[in-house]
Amino acid sequence: MRVLALTGGIGGAKLALGFAKILEPDEVAFVVNTGDDFEHLGFHISPDVDTLVYTLSGEANVDSGWGRRDESWHFMDAAQDLGMQTWFRLGDRDLALHVYRRERLAEGATLTEVTREICDRLGVIQSVLPMSDDPVRTRVLTPDGALAFQHYFVRDRCQPAVTGFEFDGIADASISPDIAGLVGASASHPLSAIVICPSNPFVSVDPILGVPGMRGLLASAGVPIIAVSPIVAGRAIKGPTAKMMRELDIPASATAVARHYRDLITGFVLDECDVGRESEIADLGLATVVTQTVMSSLEDRIALARDVLVFAGA
Amino acid sequence: MRVLALTGGIGGAKLALGFAKILEPDEVAFVVNTGDDFEHLGFHISPDVDTLVYTLSGEANVDSGWGRRDESWHFMDAAQDLGMQTWFRLGDRDLALHVYRRERLAEGATLTEVTREICDRLGVIQSVLPMSDDPVRTRVLTPDGALAFQHYFVRDRCQPAVTGFEFDGIADASISPDIAGLVGASASHPLSAIVICPSNPFVSVDPILGVPGMRGLLASAGVPIIAVSPIVAGRAIKGPTAKMMRELDIPASATAVARHYRDLITGFVLDECDVGRESEIADLGLATVVTQTVMSSLEDRIALARDVLVFAGA
Repeated sequence: MRVLALTGGIGGAKLALGFAKILEPDEVAFVVNTGDDFEHLGFHISPDVDTLVYTLSGEANVDSGWGRRDESWHFMDAAQDLGMQTWFRLGDRDLALHVYRRERLAEGATLTEVTREICDRLGVIQSVLPMSDDPVRTRVLTPDGALAFQHYFVRDRCQPAVTGFEFDGIADASISPDIAGLVGASASHPLSAIVICPSNPFVSVDPILGVPGMRGLLASAGVPIIAVSPIVAGRAIKGPTAKMMRELDIPASATAVARHYRDLITGFVLDECDVGRESEIADLGLATVVTQTVMSSLEDRIALARDVLVFAGA
Repeated sequence: MRVLALTGGIGGAKLALGFAKILEPDEVAFVVNTGDDFEHLGFHISPDVDTLVYTLSGEANVDSGWGRRDESWHFMDAAQDLGMQTWFRLGDRDLALHVYRRERLAEGATLTEVTREICDRLGVIQSVLPMSDDPVRTRVLTPDGALAFQHYFVRDRCQPAVTGFEFDGIADASISPDIAGLVGASASHPLSAIVICPSNPFVSVDPILGVPGMRGLLASAGVPIIAVSPIVAGRAIKGPTAKMMRELDIPASATAVARHYRDLITGFVLDECDVGRESEIADLGLATVVTQTVMSSLEDRIALARDVLVFAGA
């Protein structure tokens, strides 16, 4: 068994943790969106990578859904006194990771290398692979112009209406060599499945799939490619996915998500709340399975990971 | 009354605070050593500037003698978990200043400009002027080779024996334009005195005086130049001054400090513990005054500042 899971932030990290709990460390690798990376206060912030690393290391703040557990905000308070930007909150403990990453990037390390080092030091033994070591920056298009992703997502709290997306730099971005090594013909262990975690299709997964050559690379593995719906009963568990779909004139439904991925995936996992939609999705030429996709507890994460693997093997 | 005070770290900042308490903000300016600045974890650390800024703003940690009050260390703990260097302690609140400074320097601001901005935001209304905007880096020479100043001072706790000092970059350093503007013929208000605070002569004051043109600029003011002894009864109040003097085969005495500065200064302030040494110092051609130079309380700082001003005016 060898699973490659594509993931964005919180929702994806939940399923990723499920995989990490039931698979051996060399049986799963994670490809992570870097489209919402940005430079802030001189740091390279990599929110989706950090969310996954903190989740896998047990360092995640489960209550807030972002940042580190046992966090404090003394830096932020002092930064506010100095008149610095405070709309993006950097906790005192979280800062250590950002200082480390900036130093190593300045020394010439790649984002993949730095992520590996951070994982090593926080005890994460799975492979956490940024989709690319080259800068890709998601911009959210709105009637009032384009917004850098974190400005849209954090500063403006997803309030602007969305008309589309751009991924600056993606045409020049290369797939991380480590990812190519895992999927390509030279991989020492062939993949058995590729999973698209329940992340936002537009701003978490599309940047990954948009790196030149990524779709072809994934398809070339010749294994089941399974997407898990981030939409349950017309709503997103967390985040702006459903709101974005409505603004883009796409039905906020699991079926619409399946349609979004139909050229790439072979199977689709939808929630039991959406039972009855299987035939719509089957009409797209996709296998389906219905299960509980809402992950409230660790047991939920593990159960969904297991269901996905069983579905992929079927 | 217009006083220019040259200062290093803790001891100098104490007297500086005394001046700040009894003079109007435009009646005093501070020229600060930057020879112990260094790059650490990607930040530009400017210990003497920061000590003075925190002292004048009421943000200093009076107990430890360095850093900010009400400090916490969550960043440092997390940095240690990531395997980062921890010998130089950066508190969570202190970090805000370093992040701010790095950003502004990266944007092209000078150290003088950034220091002004930080002062503005922390409510320091006096002029705090780094001696130069160009990098000067003190190296402490030892039998085992040269040590970057903070390695000697913090990491190695001043334990290596000292054989001399180098100030890397000083030959190419320019006096901060703001300092030249205060002292030069074009100054709107002429100086009435120059004071060398009770800082380490070798590593706090000599870098300032070693900036090309600094001695001539100070002498050109044609005003009393008063040094306050950092040595009391053969000992330094804090720091390695006396230890350095012994290692350099210089008597650890107020007289030796006066001799060190004799080419520049016109008067010397020694502690009442050293009463009896006035004639040795007078023999150097210097005026003297004996008073209490040990500053335990705020009242001590103010009293010494007042004594120095009276002496300069005499």
